[in-house]
Amino acid sequence: MYPEMQIEAFLARLASSDPEPGGGAAAALVAATGAALVSMVASLTIGKEKYAAVQAEMKQAQDRAQALVADLAGAIDRDAESFRKVVDAYRLPRGTDEEKASRKQAVAKALRDATVEPARVVRLCQEIATWSRVAMEKGNVQAVTDAAIAAVLADAAAQSAALNVKINLGPIGDPSFTEPLWADLQGIMDRIRTVRDEVLAGTYEKLG
Amino acid sequence: MYPEMQIEAFLARLASSDPEPGGGAAAALVAATGAALVSMVASLTIGKEKYAAVQAEMKQAQDRAQALVADLAGAIDRDAESFRKVVDAYRLPRGTDEEKASRKQAVAKALRDATVEPARVVRLCQEIATWSRVAMEKGNVQAVTDAAIAAVLADAAAQSAALNVKINLGPIGDPSFTEPLWADLQGIMDRIRTVRDEVLAGTYEKLG
Repeated sequence: MYPEMQIEAFLARLASSDPEPGGGAAAALVAATGAALVSMVASLTIGKEKYAAVQAEMKQAQDRAQALVADLAGAIDRDAESFRKVVDAYRLPRGTDEEKASRKQAVAKALRDATVEPARVVRLCQEIATWSRVAMEKGNVQAVTDAAIAAVLADAAAQSAALNVKINLGPIGDPSFTEPLWADLQGIMDRIRTVRDEVLAGTYEKLG
Repeated sequence: MYPEMQIEAFLARLASSDPEPGGGAAAALVAATGAALVSMVASLTIGKEKYAAVQAEMKQAQDRAQALVADLAGAIDRDAESFRKVVDAYRLPRGTDEEKASRKQAVAKALRDATVEPARVVRLCQEIATWSRVAMEKGNVQAVTDAAIAAVLADAAAQSAALNVKINLGPIGDPSFTEPLWADLQGIMDRIRTVRDEVLAGTYEKLG
């Protein structure tokens, strides 16, 4: 649905008071844009004699980056869908005690489910960051800033998706679920930030 | 042109070896996404009794953010256009000394012109960051992570656009042009980073 939408229509709907798409969909779009830039650098390196030594690695980067673009474009929809389910669960009737209990259970399940997609986006961003370093170090130097922008976007998308996990953790409550998940995501975000900083430093060095 | 393209078609073209769209267009798209999220938070605050005290400010945030979305969507095209002109200038004939001199002048002009749009995107990102703080502090608390994501994306888009300025500064050479421009952009990026950090800290505090 959203991947088939025109960019300006998507932006207009994001800007509106419609509950979705929201920040989670935006995070997936930004991550997809970062992955597309990794593919672009690889595509501009493949077939160039100057880069003969890295052709296999660049083909691998291109394949994986294009798979990430497709996956993350799908994540825009999946995130919006899981958010709709949270909204639906909150709208369940709460007249009787039975309804209240049933609604509470439905909300808890919908909130847990809504952490799955953004948590996945955070993990995929680590992969984008790793490939952006390969692209920066070994790819066509004329596109080195595109590799760096991929790293910057992977970091921003991970931070954004993590915020969308975090907002659900409070209402979920259950620390046996929320604490290990959040600790895991924080570790991944730290690693992405380190890679981003290294890719930026390497890029500015190449630019002189 | 690009704003009317479907998201998945835009991503596919970005991922290809086509010289444009590239990182500059990606930066403008990410900035537009951040501005759209500021508008979303304002839109979810307008008309709500709980937020009666901030209605005028939220209307102002919504108006300005929507103008920024339109401006930045246009910047996707303008950045691609200025990049095409750089490529065209490099392709000018360089057989005779006269042609060489004329080509050199055309390249220098195209490179300078190609810094205008990304430098503007960096400046607009500071405005997005400023409004994201208003949205985080005073907007609908249920959308607080959307305000934070706007700040994260403003920072990432500014970093990305600045890289697209930087890659042109080396070939331009002329320090009387390049040095004040780069110093100005670095100052703006530092200010955006400070706002981003404050907005993130404020958001995590609100989430508890």
